Amino acid sequence: MGRDLATGTVTDRGAFPDAVSLRSAVAAGEWDGALDTVPDGFTQSTVVILPQRLAADFHQFCQRNKQACGLLWMSAPGDPSPGPLAPGGDIRTDLYRYRIWRDGELVDRVPDVTGLWRDDLVCFYLGCSLTFEHALDRAGVVRKPGRVYTTSIPCAPAGPFQADLAVTMRAMTTPNVIRAIQVTSRFPATHGAPVHFGDPAAIGIKDFARPDFGPPPELAPDDIPVFWACSATAVAAAEAARPDLMITFDPPYMLVTDRLVEELSVF
Amino acid sequence: MGRDLATGTVTDRGAFPDAVSLRSAVAAGEWDGALDTVPDGFTQSTVVILPQRLAADFHQFCQRNKQACGLLWMSAPGDPSPGPLAPGGDIRTDLYRYRIWRDGELVDRVPDVTGLWRDDLVCFYLGCSLTFEHALDRAGVVRKPGRVYTTSIPCAPAGPFQADLAVTMRAMTTPNVIRAIQVTSRFPATHGAPVHFGDPAAIGIKDFARPDFGPPPELAPDDIPVFWACSATAVAAAEAARPDLMITFDPPYMLVTDRLVEELSVF
Repeated sequence: MGRDLATGTVTDRGAFPDAVSLRSAVAAGEWDGALDTVPDGFTQSTVVILPQRLAADFHQFCQRNKQACGLLWMSAPGDPSPGPLAPGGDIRTDLYRYRIWRDGELVDRVPDVTGLWRDDLVCFYLGCSLTFEHALDRAGVVRKPGRVYTTSIPCAPAGPFQADLAVTMRAMTTPNVIRAIQVTSRFPATHGAPVHFGDPAAIGIKDFARPDFGPPPELAPDDIPVFWACSATAVAAAEAARPDLMITFDPPYMLVTDRLVEELSVF
Repeated sequence: MGRDLATGTVTDRGAFPDAVSLRSAVAAGEWDGALDTVPDGFTQSTVVILPQRLAADFHQFCQRNKQACGLLWMSAPGDPSPGPLAPGGDIRTDLYRYRIWRDGELVDRVPDVTGLWRDDLVCFYLGCSLTFEHALDRAGVVRKPGRVYTTSIPCAPAGPFQADLAVTMRAMTTPNVIRAIQVTSRFPATHGAPVHFGDPAAIGIKDFARPDFGPPPELAPDDIPVFWACSATAVAAAEAARPDLMITFDPPYMLVTDRLVEELSVF
């Protein structure tokens, strides 16, 4: 049985037994991108790759806005290894698809960035809410699939990096909101507790019916929208800095790491 | 500086240095009942005293409804010691005032129950939300003073004991709701997380403007009412059982124990 984390759909297709086998298939070009075959229970990571001259400022941006941009690992310049997140891994081949940005413009989507690699590239691996989705499932928190929005909450800028906070929204009933706050509070490195629930306009979401990512949300009368900080914030901030070259993950395809979700849990 | 936990008022009167000195003054009839002199940071307990023949059923009621009726200690029959909650204490004198109930009717309020004591009386010491009030203060959770309501949520009955769930309500803004859920989740023995927030009617509160205890609530436009299970539930259930003799605390005067609030905290 597999589960598409992006849509919540459960299927009878087999999931990969672990993150290593999935990454091997991805690197070999043998994965079809079917999210319901992603093994459950492994921490997923948002990836932003920038030239070294911007790395200190971007690190500062992440540090100042850590509920959105929780840094799980930062590579040495030129090092394609995701370190302890995926021993033996290679970030140049281990993502299903990459977005290539030049001077802040999205110019391409490619399945491999080996040919683009430079010795000055620094990789930022950030916590992602797909991590706590697993914990919410295990805790029996019933909710609608997530949507992504941009708020009007300004992040603390750092050098050329600035953005308004991006959030993921999940709709659920009141008892599930309480339980979801408890469960996600256990994951401070991957956004932790929600930043808001209730009225979307209170955080500057102008058109709730039109998310930045995903179809219009469908709420039942007793559903409450709950909002978590989202690492899409980091990509928006990096985009604003207009680096000559930037490589990012292509949502919804994250780096599936070897770190179990519960390894990131406190208490 | 003292603080009246029932109203949230901070005064410049001195608080007792610890629970022992307060209880000594209470037992000696030397305390004036001023809540702002109650020492901060000590676990407070709701007290229900019943004849032994009802003890097993009442224990069962507490166990079945433990979010409202968290049992901190249950005495042996006839034993007036609050055990580890207040070593050296005597429940017959350590409360400021007692309610005396006969056949389910409140018949008296007295400052001492030594003359009423019987060898078959069993004392139930239950967790009380005044305990986590301290933790909410320490965490900077801004909220309006609490109110008590009865909901239409039926408790699981046990023998002659039954009641609808009683709750305490505190009003606060959304960020404070999130923080309050985190903080109170650390105190599972004293009600833990809220049972509800938002629409009072959803849990059967018919007239929100008229609490069972306390003046009408005053909410700002962005305040959300948050509801926690309340040990007043236990008194209501015991009242319904119509014991020949029942002795309870007289709110807002709880047993102030020697146990620090944080001793009851998990993680």
